[in-house]
Amino acid sequence: MSDRLAILTDGLLHESAAKTGHGVMRYGTRDVGCVVDAVHAGRRAVDVAPFCDHPAPVVADVPAARELGADVLLVGVAPMGGRLTPQWRAMLLEAIGLGMHIEAGLHTTLADDPELAEAARAQGVQLRDLRAAPADLDVPLGREVPIPARVVHSVGSDCAIGKMTVTLELDRAARRRDLASVFIATGQTGVAITGWGMAVDHVVSDYVAGAADRLVREGAQRGDLLWLEGQGSLFHQAYSGVTLGLLHGSSADALVVCHRAGATTVGDNARTPLPALAEIARAYEQATAWVRPAPVAAIALNTAVLDEEQAREACRQAEAETGVVADDVVRFGADRVLDAVLAAVR
Amino acid sequence: MSDRLAILTDGLLHESAAKTGHGVMRYGTRDVGCVVDAVHAGRRAVDVAPFCDHPAPVVADVPAARELGADVLLVGVAPMGGRLTPQWRAMLLEAIGLGMHIEAGLHTTLADDPELAEAARAQGVQLRDLRAAPADLDVPLGREVPIPARVVHSVGSDCAIGKMTVTLELDRAARRRDLASVFIATGQTGVAITGWGMAVDHVVSDYVAGAADRLVREGAQRGDLLWLEGQGSLFHQAYSGVTLGLLHGSSADALVVCHRAGATTVGDNARTPLPALAEIARAYEQATAWVRPAPVAAIALNTAVLDEEQAREACRQAEAETGVVADDVVRFGADRVLDAVLAAVR
Repeated sequence: MSDRLAILTDGLLHESAAKTGHGVMRYGTRDVGCVVDAVHAGRRAVDVAPFCDHPAPVVADVPAARELGADVLLVGVAPMGGRLTPQWRAMLLEAIGLGMHIEAGLHTTLADDPELAEAARAQGVQLRDLRAAPADLDVPLGREVPIPARVVHSVGSDCAIGKMTVTLELDRAARRRDLASVFIATGQTGVAITGWGMAVDHVVSDYVAGAADRLVREGAQRGDLLWLEGQGSLFHQAYSGVTLGLLHGSSADALVVCHRAGATTVGDNARTPLPALAEIARAYEQATAWVRPAPVAAIALNTAVLDEEQAREACRQAEAETGVVADDVVRFGADRVLDAVLAAVR
Repeated sequence: MSDRLAILTDGLLHESAAKTGHGVMRYGTRDVGCVVDAVHAGRRAVDVAPFCDHPAPVVADVPAARELGADVLLVGVAPMGGRLTPQWRAMLLEAIGLGMHIEAGLHTTLADDPELAEAARAQGVQLRDLRAAPADLDVPLGREVPIPARVVHSVGSDCAIGKMTVTLELDRAARRRDLASVFIATGQTGVAITGWGMAVDHVVSDYVAGAADRLVREGAQRGDLLWLEGQGSLFHQAYSGVTLGLLHGSSADALVVCHRAGATTVGDNARTPLPALAEIARAYEQATAWVRPAPVAAIALNTAVLDEEQAREACRQAEAETGVVADDVVRFGADRVLDAVLAAVR
């Protein structure tokens, strides 16, 4: 796609909820013209979004984005539940009216929405649903039908803590070493970045494991070291089913556990405490072994809220607690975690 | 629905794969006129299907069912993957041509199939999709929004071992004691039997937990002792995600673990061994506790393949191994398991 994107973050550019936007700016190769966010208008993405080095200007509204030459409006926020809100609907209609294509990974299928579909038809623009799933999904084949690749699956203690980022960084580091490494997107942001993959949280629940199995087999045609992005968390009431389906469907050879340093609850909810990191890692190994065992090869810590000395200490502590390598792959580089993974899947 | 059903089992009436048909005959209050099954034609359901006391005649084909006055053809088999096969398609088209309504819980949505939809329209008959999900599902509210009922969730070591049957028997035994007991269907067979509920394996995967939460809240308007049917198994590669989503979404107060006595593998697959029963029970307690703890209150053993003395011994062994009551609720009655559950949720 050679489009010029405007990324809609609607007041959330500084929040992890805007992870689709952040991911496309940090890891994508697509042309990002600007961000649409009234709260942060007048600044640049690099000055607002965490760990973002993109200089795209932030504008207040859709017409301003259009004036800067954007011809695609990408919904850059992944809201809880994934529904289209009335406010966003108005902005999408405004963009369509200005001749822009729409791209989104919501559960609300844009093409099935009569109002949006009619407006898009009238303007001759496209509605691109990043979460659209293939119609011929099925249950997994499993390892009885061999997968000619090593599969590394990143899992996590919570949502929106950087599983996709960790996975992309590990793939990037592996490719720098000339390994036949492939990032496999399992969420709408990853699909927006790479142009393939599947948003597994949008498939019929019976087919989540089958979707993971298919993605891994597709990945094996592109390389032999596969990094399958994780979704949700075994500890998150709303999304644990997707997490386990992906885990079992992936037939992973090794796991990387992603964790926000110091986190003691799921989300900010004091009623849902997280166990200690070593127990989290053990839970993933146990759950994996219900179908096919795989070791936790390393911990990827998100230390964004700590200063550098605290961050290094958090990594040391995590290593002492779990007995495997722990590092912040965004802050300190992915090589140590990559080495640990390669040793585990050798 | 005051229809007269013909249940299509297509050679599988004696197999657990025909569980939709078995369930409707054993627990439903609907009028079953006959079974369509060329392999078993000429006999009666009671003589072929396991634990079935229904006298319905088995006929060889759809026209014979129509002649016996059936006006609905219900697909009574739940195949792996849930797709409509070419052979079934031909039989459904034949039934539609004879003026029969069609009822099925496949993943293939009948109403979305152009050939079936056109035929049904031409004949003025209905296509009833038991797996159709509500359009407004969302993530679960969770126990922070109180549920004024006790929730008992039946889980299992494998698919097709009788979780629904156990759940229906426990509900029936509780109602005999004049408790305000409610069976909550989570699969197409349960929906076919009770006329409400939801086939959670057909909802978008992100909403499985939300679907369970909604079902429990709907159940709480009908009674205060809720029996939520389980799906799949934590140990089954294809379906474990649905199992965990349902488990976490249900906010269960107690679990009943269903198990086929003596089973050591998932399905008949020697490559996927099952752990010992006590470990299975522990795995369910651990997985539940990732979000909210609940005890395994009892074991429901399926002893169908054992003789009576072996069956009683298997129950004693299961009790010794797990430390909770174990019984075959179909064979020996549901009261002991019910007592154990009531003690756990008091």
